[in-house]
Amino acid sequence: MAGERKGRRQKTAGERELIAAIRTRADQILGRRKRGILTLGIGDDCALMRPRRGEDLVVTTDLSLENVHFRRDWHPPESVGHRCLARGLSDLAAMGARPEAAFLSLALPEDLTGSWMGGFLDGLMALAERHQVPLAGGDTAKSPPGMHRRGGGLVVADIVLLGSVPKGRALLRSGARPGDGIYVTGALGGSAAELLALERQPADFRTKDKARHPHLYPEPRLAAGRKLLRDRLATAAIDVSDGLSTDLSHLCEESGVAAEIDAEALPVDARATLEQALHGGEDYELLFTAPPKAVVPSQLGGVSVHRIGRMKKPGRGPLMEIVRQDGKRTALAAGGWEHFR
Amino acid sequence: MAGERKGRRQKTAGERELIAAIRTRADQILGRRKRGILTLGIGDDCALMRPRRGEDLVVTTDLSLENVHFRRDWHPPESVGHRCLARGLSDLAAMGARPEAAFLSLALPEDLTGSWMGGFLDGLMALAERHQVPLAGGDTAKSPPGMHRRGGGLVVADIVLLGSVPKGRALLRSGARPGDGIYVTGALGGSAAELLALERQPADFRTKDKARHPHLYPEPRLAAGRKLLRDRLATAAIDVSDGLSTDLSHLCEESGVAAEIDAEALPVDARATLEQALHGGEDYELLFTAPPKAVVPSQLGGVSVHRIGRMKKPGRGPLMEIVRQDGKRTALAAGGWEHFR
Repeated sequence: MAGERKGRRQKTAGERELIAAIRTRADQILGRRKRGILTLGIGDDCALMRPRRGEDLVVTTDLSLENVHFRRDWHPPESVGHRCLARGLSDLAAMGARPEAAFLSLALPEDLTGSWMGGFLDGLMALAERHQVPLAGGDTAKSPPGMHRRGGGLVVADIVLLGSVPKGRALLRSGARPGDGIYVTGALGGSAAELLALERQPADFRTKDKARHPHLYPEPRLAAGRKLLRDRLATAAIDVSDGLSTDLSHLCEESGVAAEIDAEALPVDARATLEQALHGGEDYELLFTAPPKAVVPSQLGGVSVHRIGRMKKPGRGPLMEIVRQDGKRTALAAGGWEHFR
Repeated sequence: MAGERKGRRQKTAGERELIAAIRTRADQILGRRKRGILTLGIGDDCALMRPRRGEDLVVTTDLSLENVHFRRDWHPPESVGHRCLARGLSDLAAMGARPEAAFLSLALPEDLTGSWMGGFLDGLMALAERHQVPLAGGDTAKSPPGMHRRGGGLVVADIVLLGSVPKGRALLRSGARPGDGIYVTGALGGSAAELLALERQPADFRTKDKARHPHLYPEPRLAAGRKLLRDRLATAAIDVSDGLSTDLSHLCEESGVAAEIDAEALPVDARATLEQALHGGEDYELLFTAPPKAVVPSQLGGVSVHRIGRMKKPGRGPLMEIVRQDGKRTALAAGGWEHFR
């Protein structure tokens, strides 16, 4: 059901207020949006979309669970809301898609339906407004009684994103070819480094200032992804959510190629170590490949782009390798620790 | 992300097996399906759909939380999986839509990834196969440590359904007019009655037999909904998920009309009381309206149809009334108890 919880219990006043608050903010985005394909949002059994001729739709869904993807004693509610939507938007960016609608399923313990929920929605809706993504529906519920922890319950949020791409043009993981250059937007490892600092001193991170907080407020690279698609630059793309090594292994496996990465070419965030850049995850940058002769600009959609290696034919050696300037090679394992130094 | 959990942790062997098991069963449906619009399922950043010309898409999402929507000591895992998908399919039925793709976000405690999860998937996939709904993606995670209850964690499942309808023809809640007849498919109250019996004797309900279990294995009325749309019979429709009184109030509010229900015309399930039929919820029947002169067949898509009342202009009286054969009227409150007898 779009916008309403189902079940035997009637909704509480708090739940009805929650839905009303979400609906008001959702309608504001919907009212301002031009050319959107969402024709009916919150309020009926389903939301309704009218796809444009010559376009495909892409769909992604991402769970955010308290104590798995965030901690309430570390992450401000604005960050939890922002990150929830950013994860889905980053998947759209990796397909080169334009966001069309978001659906939020949210379960909250009773005691969080006040200011915590307000902060969560502020964070989520601010990002939605910036990218003009209408919230088209979802579901709400109270966290069940069994989820108690220190007297409270746990937060569950599931975000669904729909986006559009020109027919047959979505950027896939499977298009990389031997010889293609490997590129990444922005810098890597900043999220892992900030998470480590957050673990040590949570009080330093009670911030709503979103600039330069790669962990708390990652920026999905939607403009870069659309530019890659529009200019037919990329042969394959993925977003860096599980860490460069893991996400690169997905590109290699889906495309049937091997990869080598130039250690010195990696754009390591100023606060991060090489290990964090290779395996840290949650950077939400775009990792993509382009043909050897392609002229890839040094900036895409306002973010820097670095060439970090090349694809090659898979052989007997490791699927992924790190190459140092002196030519020394080390196998790169997905998610593992590479013993480079 | 379609089909994979994101986050800093690597997936465990159990999680990878879960995803592989889901993917195999999903691919089987996809392979057999004709004319589907899903062109890329599990395995990339997003799933990909190619909408048909002249069609709209409908989208719905439904949370199923342990101890809110089901209990593990009452509901067999097959029932939990079935009900999870049935809730979403029922929303599609209420729009007159044809199912095109499902996305499942599933969080499970570690100790349930064996036979419990197998049962859950069996229940869900059996219903998906019956209605030829491909599972196109989703997300998986382990239930967080804070969710412990008697040594285990809690189950969270969020289902997303996409369906298609001819352009501009979706059945909405807002189309009912004064004078329209009010109709309902099947029987009401059976789910509430079975839930009560289940609470009393859970051991009697360890069944995978799906016939005549309106609570454990409700049947979404997809064929009836599509027939209503195709034959242009209905002016408005909704599914009976929160109970007749609540869902009828939604139809009245969205259409700007009032309703009167003939007490004797209500198709009350043989096991149920009138109160359960009016307020019980989770019957997943279709409630719809049709013009006064419309000839509505007594069966639609293999299920019986009853005319249970009429819409009228909203006045100073109650929004909804129950009318007895002797002409006595009683106000009907959404979700409340009506004092008829």
